Order: sequence, then C-alpha cells, then structure tokens
Amino acid sequence: MYSGSVNPGISRTVVEDIVRQITLEYLAKKNGKAAPTLVVHASARHMHVSREDLDKLYGPGHELTPDRPLYQEGNYAAKETVTLVGPRGRVISNLRILGPMRKQSQVELAFTDAISLGLNDVPIRLSGDLAGTAGAVILGPKGVVELKEGVIRAAIHVHMNPEDAAQFAVKQGDLMKLHVGGASGLTFNRVHVRIDPTSKLNVHMDTDEANACGLHLAKELELTK
Amino acid sequence: MYSGSVNPGISRTVVEDIVRQITLEYLAKKNGKAAPTLVVHASARHMHVSREDLDKLYGPGHELTPDRPLYQEGNYAAKETVTLVGPRGRVISNLRILGPMRKQSQVELAFTDAISLGLNDVPIRLSGDLAGTAGAVILGPKGVVELKEGVIRAAIHVHMNPEDAAQFAVKQGDLMKLHVGGASGLTFNRVHVRIDPTSKLNVHMDTDEANACGLHLAKELELTK
Repeated sequence: MYSGSVNPGISRTVVEDIVRQITLEYLAKKNGKAAPTLVVHASARHMHVSREDLDKLYGPGHELTPDRPLYQEGNYAAKETVTLVGPRGRVISNLRILGPMRKQSQVELAFTDAISLGLNDVPIRLSGDLAGTAGAVILGPKGVVELKEGVIRAAIHVHMNPEDAAQFAVKQGDLMKLHVGGASGLTFNRVHVRIDPTSKLNVHMDTDEANACGLHLAKELELTK
Repeated sequence: MYSGSVNPGISRTVVEDIVRQITLEYLAKKNGKAAPTLVVHASARHMHVSREDLDKLYGPGHELTPDRPLYQEGNYAAKETVTLVGPRGRVISNLRILGPMRKQSQVELAFTDAISLGLNDVPIRLSGDLAGTAGAVILGPKGVVELKEGVIRAAIHVHMNPEDAAQFAVKQGDLMKLHVGGASGLTFNRVHVRIDPTSKLNVHMDTDEANACGLHLAKELELTK
C-alpha cells in the first residue's frame, strides 16, 4: 500500500547468515546438578535438498561444498545457493542450501520472508513434516525444480541428547517453554523437543523470533518444561 | 557473510503498511461482564516529527497531509515520507511519517529494520522516552535533519480508556501479558499499559513481533494482567 524499499544490500546482515552467531548460555542449578549449557541460534531462511533435486539444480552427481560448519555435528552451510520464486513471480535470491542432503527437499522461511514472497499461509511445521505445504519454484545454475510442497516456517525447537532429556524430564515431541528476559520479555510456549544421541543442546528459532525477542541483546534465557 | 538480497519490491508488503490491518478480536467473560473487544495491530517502521524538524524536511510551515486514518482517534498515516540514513550510509527510504506532529521527533523501527540499518543497539522504549537513544540522519525533499537521539524500537503496549483499565484492574504503566495461541504459541510478558480517556482498546506490536507470533494467522489472543 505504501511505496518503499530497503536497500537490497542491507537485508543481508539480517537474514542471510545461516546461523546468526548469538550464542547465549546459562548455567542453572537443578536438583543440585548444573543444567546443561543452553545455546540458542537464529536460523535464517535456507533450503535442504534431495539428491534428485540437487541433480536438477546443480547438475547430475553434484556434491554440496561445505562453506561453514553448523553447531550440530555434521551439518553445514553449503557454498551452493538457489533462487526461490514465489507464486506471483517474486523472488528471493541467494537462498543458502544446508547440508547434508535429505530425502526430501524443504525450504524454511521466516514469515517475513514468506509474506515477502507472496506466501501468506506458510504453515509452521517441524522439519520433514511437509504434507500439504505450499510449493515453490527453485532455480539453480543448471536447472529448475518445481517443488510441489515443502515450504514451511520451521517450528521453534530444541535439539538435545538423551542425557539432557533425562535432566529436563522430557521426551521426544514434548513441548517446552523458552523464556527470554529483558525489555522484550517474551515466552515461546511451544518449543518442540527433538532428541538424538548425537545432538548438542541447542534451541533453533527463526529470524522473526530472534528479532521479536531481541536475541542479539538477550542476557536472560531459560528453558523449562 | 553470505551474499544475498531480497527483491526490493517485495519488502513493501511486509513492512511498509503502517498498520497491518489484522484485527483480531475476542470476547471473554470476566466477572460476568463481557471483556472489551481486543484489537491488535502491527505497526511498521515509521516516524513522528516535530514542527521544527518538519520545517527543515518539508519547508517552513508545511502541514502533514493525512493519507489514512489510524485506529486511534486523531492519528493518521501522512502522505509525507522521509529517507533514513544509518551510521554506515545504509538507508531506509520511504519511511512514513505519522501525524499529528509531536514535541520531539522519533523514529520507530523493528529490530529487523534497525539491524539492516547498522543500528545493533536500538533500545526498546515507550514512545517519547528518548533520552540516550541513537540518532540518525533524516532526509526530506527540502532539507536534512540530524537527529541526536530518537531512534527506538517501540515497546509493545496496549492503549485503553479508564473503563477498560478498571475492568482489567490495571493502572498506568502496569505490564500485562498478551498470549497468542495456535502453532506459534507466544506470550508477550511486558505489554505496557497506556491509559487515556480518548483511547480505544488496542495492542500495538511491531512487525517483528507480528511475524514471530504469526499475527496474520492468529485466532486466539488473550490479554491478561
């Protein structure tokens, strides 16, 4: 309705860091034991690709080139990027691919990104839960993929190993609360628990959530059942 | 760190609507009485100007031209816009001015905007509480204003009249909670109460907060003490 634009150069710092490196840690006592250190990351929009789709986007047999390791072991931001085209021809360029490859391609956007792209009904889903989600057209240097589904806003979640889970007394799929103190004073009431033996305790939120709670300024964080 | 850009045309729909017209209302019973209808608005970045600064930006004696009335009586989005220049020369163009004029100029940005502009330490403040905040350079068609201070992220707040306040049993400056249900499941714990006889019950949040809680999709909202 109102005309306006953001210098395209300046959006980068906001949303293009795959993981904004604001690691906030706290140590708390619980039952006499120190609670695990909590690290909270903001994930910018990104894509996961299947073997089949990477073949189309970057050519048959192309392998992802790790650019930067992510906090969770074995995960990385790849050098490869794609262009995302929304339903009315709007685009997001330089959408980063995260490795390793997955069974099914998936695009994770914050609502800010989704609305920008003309997708007003992107559902909040856990990674991999893609049935009935919106599709998009993906452009790579060697070809195009038309995703029939797979565009989601990732639900805020916490990775942990079974020992962490035991300490928090939670099980796979439970919901926890993340309290962010300070002037923003926000509580995320639906932090999905994802337990894996290889995981490090780590909350993943998106850039909208990070900016709403002022994650880059936050000094008080508490994860509770 | 990663290169990337958003088509500048597409940012408009996200952040340039002064008030995104998502009015979510609920009726609840409290002590046998129906609670006031709650309307929640997301305010995009904008500016309030003083007489002195408008003289410089748009020429001596220039009057703001109302473009669209806002929900609170007497407030409006003006046709006039300015360009905001951050510390490293980054700009936000077409920053909307809201009327009427105020004693002191003030720029309200979401953190997404602030970080884009290179301002990483914009404080969360109530309107008018500007001491010690960051400054910025403002460009208008007729001149330039160098704000020494006045750039804030507006604290989430609720406008209400004394009758609403009595019903909620809150007083000026109290903090309330806004619970947003659904898949995002977010609670804003520090919603500042602002009471004025002319006010209509109305929560104001910024675009980051709106996108974090999925305000455009939200169906459950509750304001509590």
